[in-house]
Amino acid sequence: MSPKITGELLRQLRQAMKNCKYFSEPIQAYIIPSGDAHQSEYIAPCDCRREFISGFDGSAGTAIVTEQHAAMWTDGRYFLQANQQMDNNWTLMKMGLKETPSQEDWLISVLPENSKVGVDPWIIAADQWKNMFKALSSAGHSLVAVQDNLIDAVWPDRPERPSTQLRSLGLDFTGISWQDKITTLRAKMSERKITWFVATALDEIAWLFNLRGADIEYNPVFFAYTIVGMNTIRFFVDLKRLSDPAMREHLQLDSPSKPELSIQTFPYESVYTELQAICAALGPKDKVWICDKASCALTQVIPKTHRSPIPYTPLCLGKAVKNATEIQGMKMAHIKDAVALCELFAWLEKEVSYFFCFQKDFVGLSFPTISSVGPHGAIIHYRPLPETNRTLTVNEVYLIDSGAQYVDGTTDVTRTMHFGTPSAFEKECFTYVLKGHIAVSAAIFPNGTKGHLLDSFARSALWESGLDYLHGTGHGVGCFLNVHEGPCGISYKTFADEPLEAGMIVSDEPGYYEDGSFGIRLENVVLVVPAKPKYNYRNRGSLTFEPLTLVPIQVKMMNTELLTQKERDWVNEYHRKCREVVGAELERQGRQEALEWLIRETQLII
Amino acid sequence: MSPKITGELLRQLRQAMKNCKYFSEPIQAYIIPSGDAHQSEYIAPCDCRREFISGFDGSAGTAIVTEQHAAMWTDGRYFLQANQQMDNNWTLMKMGLKETPSQEDWLISVLPENSKVGVDPWIIAADQWKNMFKALSSAGHSLVAVQDNLIDAVWPDRPERPSTQLRSLGLDFTGISWQDKITTLRAKMSERKITWFVATALDEIAWLFNLRGADIEYNPVFFAYTIVGMNTIRFFVDLKRLSDPAMREHLQLDSPSKPELSIQTFPYESVYTELQAICAALGPKDKVWICDKASCALTQVIPKTHRSPIPYTPLCLGKAVKNATEIQGMKMAHIKDAVALCELFAWLEKEVSYFFCFQKDFVGLSFPTISSVGPHGAIIHYRPLPETNRTLTVNEVYLIDSGAQYVDGTTDVTRTMHFGTPSAFEKECFTYVLKGHIAVSAAIFPNGTKGHLLDSFARSALWESGLDYLHGTGHGVGCFLNVHEGPCGISYKTFADEPLEAGMIVSDEPGYYEDGSFGIRLENVVLVVPAKPKYNYRNRGSLTFEPLTLVPIQVKMMNTELLTQKERDWVNEYHRKCREVVGAELERQGRQEALEWLIRETQLII
Repeated sequence: MSPKITGELLRQLRQAMKNCKYFSEPIQAYIIPSGDAHQSEYIAPCDCRREFISGFDGSAGTAIVTEQHAAMWTDGRYFLQANQQMDNNWTLMKMGLKETPSQEDWLISVLPENSKVGVDPWIIAADQWKNMFKALSSAGHSLVAVQDNLIDAVWPDRPERPSTQLRSLGLDFTGISWQDKITTLRAKMSERKITWFVATALDEIAWLFNLRGADIEYNPVFFAYTIVGMNTIRFFVDLKRLSDPAMREHLQLDSPSKPELSIQTFPYESVYTELQAICAALGPKDKVWICDKASCALTQVIPKTHRSPIPYTPLCLGKAVKNATEIQGMKMAHIKDAVALCELFAWLEKEVSYFFCFQKDFVGLSFPTISSVGPHGAIIHYRPLPETNRTLTVNEVYLIDSGAQYVDGTTDVTRTMHFGTPSAFEKECFTYVLKGHIAVSAAIFPNGTKGHLLDSFARSALWESGLDYLHGTGHGVGCFLNVHEGPCGISYKTFADEPLEAGMIVSDEPGYYEDGSFGIRLENVVLVVPAKPKYNYRNRGSLTFEPLTLVPIQVKMMNTELLTQKERDWVNEYHRKCREVVGAELERQGRQEALEWLIRETQLII
Repeated sequence: MSPKITGELLRQLRQAMKNCKYFSEPIQAYIIPSGDAHQSEYIAPCDCRREFISGFDGSAGTAIVTEQHAAMWTDGRYFLQANQQMDNNWTLMKMGLKETPSQEDWLISVLPENSKVGVDPWIIAADQWKNMFKALSSAGHSLVAVQDNLIDAVWPDRPERPSTQLRSLGLDFTGISWQDKITTLRAKMSERKITWFVATALDEIAWLFNLRGADIEYNPVFFAYTIVGMNTIRFFVDLKRLSDPAMREHLQLDSPSKPELSIQTFPYESVYTELQAICAALGPKDKVWICDKASCALTQVIPKTHRSPIPYTPLCLGKAVKNATEIQGMKMAHIKDAVALCELFAWLEKEVSYFFCFQKDFVGLSFPTISSVGPHGAIIHYRPLPETNRTLTVNEVYLIDSGAQYVDGTTDVTRTMHFGTPSAFEKECFTYVLKGHIAVSAAIFPNGTKGHLLDSFARSALWESGLDYLHGTGHGVGCFLNVHEGPCGISYKTFADEPLEAGMIVSDEPGYYEDGSFGIRLENVVLVVPAKPKYNYRNRGSLTFEPLTLVPIQVKMMNTELLTQKERDWVNEYHRKCREVVGAELERQGRQEALEWLIRETQLII
């Protein structure tokens, strides 16, 4: 992978930073966050501005360009990748290391006095704007909203915004109609004396209307905004997408059941002016709910006295706790996923050995061919993501992180395996990671516990040997929605962390990465379920996790002497369940080789 | 314990809330925080305003009185006590329970529109003021600074502010002279381009000048403020305290070694006007450091453009990492403490059995007599704190939380014991608490880990059985300073939590409390020390804890079957160290009975 050559691009951007077409005075720095106007984690190609200017295409990162410098902040997952993808014009700022300055501190240290720092107000979240604004102001600089995006100005062949076909989901997949979701939302609004609610997160809008799209790869969402009042619903979306009769029927566009459930449709771009019109007509006591992570541009349309910023919207919280239909769907999706992976792994094991037997200088399988394997019938999108696009040999630890979107659910699984003989160190690290995975998965904890309080359980065994990993342990998982969703998770970072409750779904994915040598990660998607321990302190109730992912964990990689009896019992019980549930499905589908592989891989350990 | 009768007092306070002598318009609510003007945790009798108005004398709590209501917020440690000490005029707000409203939410729910809420700006911290101000403003109310304290107005026999004799500490106790501490502080100020620093926390001022007082019970501090500039030092204190020639010599008041180390002294009360004068003369770029937990009154003297609020001052951070002299002193103090406790426990065991043998209806020892036991020669203040002042029998779990101030260090130890036969449930709970204590004490974790990430280790065994405790696991401990100090700790609460580093000293004190029946807590003071595990991920280095407290943990209370081999090894190694270090000292002092008790209590467990 060779880095992107960015010298000329940066010259043009710095030109634009001085160009008075965009603002009254030149700016001395320009911030390029990685998001879109909806603060999505994964973004459409037209929104990959940070990648375009720098070459670095990891999922997280913020670029800042000044007259002299170009710097990129990203976290431990991407240090290697960012170094490979960026040329010498860029400085990598390794987040999470003590010596790395924050964006604010760095700006203050490099900028001349009274500088202006520009940013696109549609791309920066309101809370980030506020923090940056404060920090810069206190040092005598100012933060400026630049309405025209300066990257777009130097990006001649920027792709168009996608507008894929919408898909409506019936009650058999969603469990609750969009009309009932609106009613629940309005009840929460009147409880808090709120008159308007502005939805900007794409997965929240998709969940609210029981619609899905394919505007962003891997994320079955579509570009839209929604403003819900006590009697009105405004839906901002490319109107071409609403011409299909079934779609009009689903949204009851032509014959609403009740006037207050009538949806008024508007072009996507008109959300700004429409919100301005609503705000101009606000009564003195009217309050507008908007997420504090919504764009600065849209947030600032709402006068401060009427604005009620919230860390999580009621949609975010409602979506996080899955209903019975959604949980059932997620279980089905994970069984289908396990079938596909058993088939893939069985095939892989055979092929690798086969090639290896016949060819001493075997170069290896290239990864993309593997992704076509397996029964992907009901799969909307299948996403095998090896750590890098390296070839595969029997001498190396093989890590596969794969996720699929099924109509009934979303999956995300990581397994680490070896097709030859792993080294003692590789086994030792794998076993610590497994101990961490089990410590989280088997933990019992009180109702209302926040996920960050469980994060250290996943690290304890690694820490004891002086090892660690530089990412969180788990993220919320949507139901046929984004594979990363808020408001819960398991991370040493304590922001964005609502208490865990039964029905929430998160991943459990500790890892260990030896730079330039191997990577280990074990990831299951797990459902938060009630636990019934011996006592019940203050009647708070207890919770634990039930794994939804049912794919064997490679015994060959374990140093079972490092496992306690409790941990060995956990592995055996997990493998018993894999055999029982996935084995039955493999048998039903007549997939004999995969079944044999499954049985071999789920032998008891002692 | 009968509750304080508060009807007449509340009537007078509500009268004062309407009395225009104190402000232009009546206020509808008055907040009475528990602190003093220095945001001390423990306070002098003259500052016990919340206790005076309510009767509740726990260390944490905030009262709010409106025309109709009187409500008290406190945490899980004090639910029982607050209920017993307050009469029916008061409503207890149990913090940490989901259904309990925050002070802001409660005020908004009970106040009539456009209400004024008053508070003494010297007692409320600047950051609390800010949050309360915001929340009330957004609901149409206002927060008002009431300069005259309304509790003082209805408190005719309020005690005087103490002014005890000051004690200076030499280099053999402090390790660093106050002159060197000033120089280090100024280096940090110039690094951050700060021209003035205002110190308001009493323990920070005591640490800075290597002085101690006795103005607040248990806390060897004295009422003072300090303002440090790049060339000047202003010290605000009752000037009578500086007349002693040795004190004047310690502070070099009459012959400073260098002009910039010359201390100007001022009366305690003049800090406000003196800071005003400093602020009036500030240059455009001058910045003033003040802790964001300092009083609102003093903070607001500094114009906002010149104010640099910080969560922890450099003094707080400097004080937290103990130097070699301080660590040596803390170790010595803990040995002396262990000798005293061994003697106390040996005596206690004998006396209780003795009375029990002779008298069937034995009523018990009353606790206060016990506190006079033991060799308290070098002890500044000895503080035995049983959970309540109940009598002692052989049928009950006995919890003693004791702490002492020695000239070379501060101790804080809790032990739980039974002088008869504990029930299986009591032993089970004790063992879970012990498992939690060991899990924290033996944990190895990376340099830079924040204490809150270790909190769940202390709870894991309790959680697994559905149990928990409603307080944090540990607090910072000062060296002949406050027994509770910031900025580090081990708590599920994530504020006030600087990363742990070698040299910091915290407590490790999980517990379990069965309401109305028994309480269990096991507390050691532990020193953060470097650990040397097998690997060293990214050269970050690892840390662990070394117990400074060396008092046996009662084996009779353990269900050793619930302990793992690793945990049994930890107990045996801990007891071996108690025997070795404390046993030698007991032998040297010829305390035979205590030595025999120590040897009996530190037998190997298997």
